[in-house]
This record gives sequence, C-alpha cells and structure tokens, in this order.
Amino acid sequence: MAEINGPSVRTAVPGPLTNSSKTELDTIFDARTVQMVIDYDRSSGNYLVDVDGNTYLDVYAQIASIPVGYNNPTLIKAAQSPVMVSALVNRPAIGNFPSHHWLNILREGLMRVAPRGCTQVFTAQSGSEANELAFKATFMAYQQRLRGSTPWSDHELESVMNNQGPGTPELAILSFKNSFHGRGFASLSATRSKPVHKMDIPAFKWPQATFPALKYPLDEHEEENKQEEARCLLEIKHIVDSWHCPVAGIIVEPIQSEGGDNHASPQFFQELQAITKSRGMSLIVDEVQTGFGATGKFWAHEHWNLPSAPDLVTFSKKAQTAGYFFSDSNLRPDKAYRQFNTWMGDAARVIMSNAVVDEILSKDLVSETARIGNILYDNIASLASRYPNFILNLRGKGKGTYIAFDTPDSSALLKEMRSLGINIGSCGVSTIRLRPMLIFKECHISPLLEALETAFLRLQG
Amino acid sequence: MAEINGPSVRTAVPGPLTNSSKTELDTIFDARTVQMVIDYDRSSGNYLVDVDGNTYLDVYAQIASIPVGYNNPTLIKAAQSPVMVSALVNRPAIGNFPSHHWLNILREGLMRVAPRGCTQVFTAQSGSEANELAFKATFMAYQQRLRGSTPWSDHELESVMNNQGPGTPELAILSFKNSFHGRGFASLSATRSKPVHKMDIPAFKWPQATFPALKYPLDEHEEENKQEEARCLLEIKHIVDSWHCPVAGIIVEPIQSEGGDNHASPQFFQELQAITKSRGMSLIVDEVQTGFGATGKFWAHEHWNLPSAPDLVTFSKKAQTAGYFFSDSNLRPDKAYRQFNTWMGDAARVIMSNAVVDEILSKDLVSETARIGNILYDNIASLASRYPNFILNLRGKGKGTYIAFDTPDSSALLKEMRSLGINIGSCGVSTIRLRPMLIFKECHISPLLEALETAFLRLQG
Repeated sequence: MAEINGPSVRTAVPGPLTNSSKTELDTIFDARTVQMVIDYDRSSGNYLVDVDGNTYLDVYAQIASIPVGYNNPTLIKAAQSPVMVSALVNRPAIGNFPSHHWLNILREGLMRVAPRGCTQVFTAQSGSEANELAFKATFMAYQQRLRGSTPWSDHELESVMNNQGPGTPELAILSFKNSFHGRGFASLSATRSKPVHKMDIPAFKWPQATFPALKYPLDEHEEENKQEEARCLLEIKHIVDSWHCPVAGIIVEPIQSEGGDNHASPQFFQELQAITKSRGMSLIVDEVQTGFGATGKFWAHEHWNLPSAPDLVTFSKKAQTAGYFFSDSNLRPDKAYRQFNTWMGDAARVIMSNAVVDEILSKDLVSETARIGNILYDNIASLASRYPNFILNLRGKGKGTYIAFDTPDSSALLKEMRSLGINIGSCGVSTIRLRPMLIFKECHISPLLEALETAFLRLQG
Repeated sequence: MAEINGPSVRTAVPGPLTNSSKTELDTIFDARTVQMVIDYDRSSGNYLVDVDGNTYLDVYAQIASIPVGYNNPTLIKAAQSPVMVSALVNRPAIGNFPSHHWLNILREGLMRVAPRGCTQVFTAQSGSEANELAFKATFMAYQQRLRGSTPWSDHELESVMNNQGPGTPELAILSFKNSFHGRGFASLSATRSKPVHKMDIPAFKWPQATFPALKYPLDEHEEENKQEEARCLLEIKHIVDSWHCPVAGIIVEPIQSEGGDNHASPQFFQELQAITKSRGMSLIVDEVQTGFGATGKFWAHEHWNLPSAPDLVTFSKKAQTAGYFFSDSNLRPDKAYRQFNTWMGDAARVIMSNAVVDEILSKDLVSETARIGNILYDNIASLASRYPNFILNLRGKGKGTYIAFDTPDSSALLKEMRSLGINIGSCGVSTIRLRPMLIFKECHISPLLEALETAFLRLQG
C-alpha cells in the first residue's frame, strides 16, 4: 500500500461517525478519552485515516508507540509468519515451558539492539510492568548485598507473609518531579506528572528530587544551566542521605516526556550515575518513550557517554513489547522464581519487535532520524523566529525528531492542528511534543510546518 | 493436525536437548525455572511435545492458561485473520485511537461471556495488572463516595504529588492467607502464598484474614466446616472494623489455587459479599485461574448464587487476555484519564480470546467439562480408596476438572509423573492440582490414572 499523499480533512473533527462510534463504545468500555475512531486498514505510513474519512499526518504515533508506520510491509510479513501464528495460538508460560524458538527470537531481535554492556533481558508486557520489574530487581539486589550468603531467617520468612519487616523492608526508589514511569502502584508512586494520574491511589512514601529546569536554547545558557544541574545533584545527594529509609535506586527518563520534554546534559547523567555507584544504588534508565531511535541514537542514554552501562534499561512503546536489559549478574536474583510470572511477556509481541528491529537496522532509520531531525529542528527554529509568541523554548536540537516547544495554549493549538489534518500531541503544562515515527521524511516537513503556520495565524485572530 | 495418541517418553526428563537449550538460553534470559523446552509445532490438543521428542499428556496447561488445546484450528484461523494482522501491525493506544473494529471485538467475545450483571469491561494484559486496575477502581470509588460532588481541594492536589495524604490516602485491600493475586507491588501486597514471591519487596501494610480450612470430603464435614467458615467471617469483620485505615475492598479467589486449592461454601461467599455491602467496600472476585469454564461453570462464582453480581470480576490465563468486568457505574471514575494507560490491553490477544469464546460456546465445553470432571473425580476417588497414603483430602467434587489432592511428597510425584509422560502441577504445601484444558475427554482419563498408579507403586518402592 503506497503512502497517502497528504492530509485531508472533510468533516468537523471529531467527525459524526467518530462521535457515534464513541457513544456506542462507551456503553461497554470507558470511551471518554477517545479522540478519533480509526480505520487502520486504510491508514498507511505516517498517515492515519479516521472512520469519517479524514486523513491525518500523524506526528503523535499512538503516544510515541508506532515505530515504522501503519501497515508496514515488514511487520505484516512478521504478523503472517508461522512462528507468529504458533506464538498466538500456543501461548506458553515462558519461564517454565519456552518454545524452542524463544532463544532465537531474543537473539535475533532485542539482543541485537541491547544497550552496550547489557547482556541480559527480562521480557514484560508494558512500560509500567517493565519499570516495576526493574524496581523488584533493584530491591532484591540491594537486600542481597546486605545479606550476603546468610540464608533467609525465620524472622524474615514469617514477617514477609505479613508485609512487615525485616522480610518486607522499607526501601525506596527516588524519582524526579514531573517524571512519568507508569500507572501501576509502584510505578505510579514514582510518577510525578499530574494529580489526575495519582489522586486517591495509595502510594509508597518515596522521595522526589527536582529535575533541572534548563533554559533553551541550551548553548546560549551554558553557565546558568550548569549551576541549575549542580543544585539538583546536591539536592539528590541530600535526599538520598537523609531519607527515612534506604533509597535502593534512582529512576530517570533521558528526556522527561509526559512531564514536558525536559532535557538535562550528559554531565548531569554522568554525575547521577556516580551518585548511585558511590552509594550501592541501582540506576534505572526509563527508555520507554525515548528508546528505539527517535532521539537519533538507538537508546537516548547513548548521548551521555557513560563510563559504564546503566544498571537497568527499561523499554516498551516503539519496541511493541516491553522489558528491561541489564548486565550485572547481581540483578538476577539469587534464587529461581523470585522474578517470575505466568506469561513473562508475550512472544507474539517480541516477534513484532524483531520485525521493527530488522526494519530499523536494514534501513538505517536511526541515522536517518538524526538527519531529518536536524532539518526539522532548523525549520521549526526558523518558524519560531517569525512566531515567537507561539513557539517558546524550542528544544531537542541534535536529538533526532524528539523536538518540543512551549506554546501559550496547547489545547487550542492541538485542536487547530487536527482540523488541519495533523495529529500532534502535548505534554507538561503547555508543551507541544513531536513524536513522529522513524519513517518521517523531508516530504512530511512541509505539511507539518504549513499547518503550524496556519494554526498560529488563526489563533492570533 | 490429529491429536497425538498417548504419552511417550524416550529420554530422561528433562532430556539432553532440553538441558542444552536451557543452558544456552540462560546466557541471555534467566532460565533457571525452565522445566521443558517445547516444540509447539508438534504439540496438539492435550499433548505437549518437547525438543527431545517426548510427548506428555498436559494436565497443567501452562499454569492453567491453555483453554482449548495446542494448535486448535479455530484459534489458528483467528491468528491468520486480517483483523489480527492489523491488530498486530498497527498497535493502537486503545483509549485514544481505537480501531473501528474494537467495539465489535469486545461485543463478539468478552461481552458475550461477561458475568451476569456485569455490563462493562476494562482490558489489561495480565492477571496482576487486572487485579491492580480493579484495586485502583475500588480506591477511586471509595474516595468518591466520601467526597461526593466536592471538587479536589488545593490540599489534595498538592499532597498527592508528594505521595502524602489527603490526596494520597491510606486505604487497604483485605486478602486471605494463602491467596495469590499476582506479582505487581499492590497485587503482591495482597498475595500471601510463599516467601519466595514476596521477600525483599516493599509492600503496602494491608490486612490478611484466615481463609476457611475445610475438611474434605465436604459433605462428610458439614457442621464443622460451617463453624470454621463462621469463625473466619467473624475474623474478617473484626479486621475490617479495627484496621488502622479504611479497608476499601476485599479480594478473593473462588478457589485458592496457588495456595493449595482451598475451597469454601457458597454461603461463605454470600456472607462475604454481605460484609462488603454493609460497609461500602468493593468485592473483587479474582477469577484469573478459575474463570473460563474449568470449574464446570463459565465463572466459578456462578456456583455461589449471589443475590447480585460481585463489584469487580478479574480474568486472565485461559482468556488469553486480561481485564476486569464491572457493573456499578461508580466504579468508572468520575473523570476521564484517571483509569488509563497507553495500550489498555492488546487487541491481538482480545481477538484470540474471541476465538476461545467461540470454541467454548459452540462446543458446549463448559457443560462437557462439568460432565467429564464428575467422571474424573469418581475415578480418582476410587484410586484414593486404594492408595489412601498417596491421595489425601481429595477435593473439587462438582467443580468440573478443578480437582486436587494432597500427597506426602508432591515434588517426587511430579517428577515420576513427568517420566511417565504426564505434565502435572503442584500448589500449596504438597498438593497436586489438576488443571487440564476444556477439551480433556474420557480418553484422557486412563493414561492419567494409570500413570498415577504406576507412580504411587514406584514411590512406595
């Protein structure tokens, strides 16, 4: 299927068919969040077609989750393969009864793109689950270091069944203000994005530190940004050293995404890793949104030049599956069945991931994204100079297509953009984030830029 | 593919190829829990074939997760359908951009088998996730009842971002000793199965109550079992009324499965529901292992004749997908995006679920399982009368094939059974649990019974 030529909107957005479908769906499934009802059979490449027949250039990509385009032929081939049919039909308890294909499925996909220094993988089904499994690995390793070769005591064995210490320890994960790490009870305890995500849900009393609030463009504010990062690093050390219980790990996004596309420098992350290393903590790099190429590196943390690999790197979204990579054998618990569940991920989704990896590597899509991202950034920077009231704090230079800017009223801009045939996302307080797929090309820049300009003209009235 | 004729074991178990595959897999993926490496392409119906060419009658079924047999033709057809290919290739953020097929996918599958009185569904990816989403719905509804129409206060909005009250309340879920509800941080807080599941993992300080320890056969111990259940119900009321924070809900398995196949009477569950109703709590029925027919009813809680539906019913495993059903509109949060995540389940797995539902309904597999279960139970009861030292506390009469018994050394029996070509599971302290598929027939009873008898003879030496 050839890619659609360009955006085209023929009804109000949302259109009448989307509205009626949404109302009908809502009788059995909470549909209040539905923005469009999509005809995926007619969608292709970077273009999404809704049931009303409107066509959108999609630079939001299912909350940054479509890697290589709708109805990608390589993915279709994988979806139709015999190994996929078997994975769908004979869903195993992978930890107990893996298929004889499982080793090769991992080797030929996820392990080909494992972050440098990461030699092992644990598969999961969502970003939240991946982060929570990484927390569990962190907590078990932390206690293991304290316990050494001493076997579990009777006191531990009894107290743990009652959710009490010493078997159930008080341990914390430090996360950052404005971070998003998922919506499970532990990942949500680390998430600090918006009250609507957290209200009324019991949470662990874990600490949060300030993430650097940098000024953009970064290269014009080097000195003050350096001071801001130094202030944050000091705060982190203070919190870790004074928290009411041991802080076993720090989780951080390379770029805070839901929280507003907030960046920090490689030096900041290097020093963050040094803090964790000096205190026997794990560093968990949450690459759920940044991983798989969009920043112009396969993993965003490659931009940091760390002296050694992060302890755990979590992934999901564009990977089409989820899990975490790690290297330190201490992050594999000392006993079997401590890190375990019935399905341990889904081989069907890991097979899709392999097709994504094939497509990315064979078409060099990471370098391509780096290249296109630079052109796109320059184009938006030029637009910003003409519409400085609409594009503020442009950021993501040199980070592929992972580009964002603040705007006075992001909801209004989103709405205008959709009526112009561009599906785009927001984040933070009033930030527009670009999350195009890895197949976003030169030819998609004009429709996006033209729509932005039209929207600005309309909004300034 | 015709079903295999019967078990056949030609190597030691595990065989040399399983051992070498396991060792190789272990270099990149924790394989210490691997029991067999399987050739799913050669497996069919109730039979599993390992890489060493051994064939097993499978009455464990991937920890009770294979509903209608390996390589089931109806499932193969679903796996090859165009709607499946699209669901695999174009994975949507279902809450924002559902496919126009989504409504029908839900209607034609999960909603056809929704528990009586349950009108809505929320989809998820695992039993743990389903239970945690049910907890979140419970907590939000509980606070909503207290708050009424008062909007969130500034104090709530600020405190919640800091994981502190009042925005982050202290609320609990009561679960039962020996229960298993999953391995996420909240589901694991409710899980009370074994220390190895919980050690070193921070947990919420939630209460546990004693689950009735009934004597079997149930019909010979009616009076004392009634007293035992009354004692437990009193304890539950006492705990709920005296816990240090409000208990917003109770989660219970219809039959405690991982915890040892522990049963309770319909009256017990009716009174449990009455306790929740009188205190404004939610009753969450965890049908992750019991749901989808194995007890001779589609949902195990149908055995209880409750006056009204449980508040939430969670499912996974044989459903091949996961989620929860509910009826009370208060369990849908008052605002959009409070119960939300990127993927909200996986349409591909829901499509497989539909094929499972088709197969179960069109072949009347629930009634069939009830019928076969009665025959199987009688056969095992007869074996028990000859081997009373090996089959103790036989249970599950009238509960389909959901049959279990205690045995002096379950590990030794499991090992013998596997060497005889039967893949069978254990649970609790030393219990053998039968978890055959819904296509287990008369012809599979003999191989199972013969192997049990041979194993007993070998074990008694």
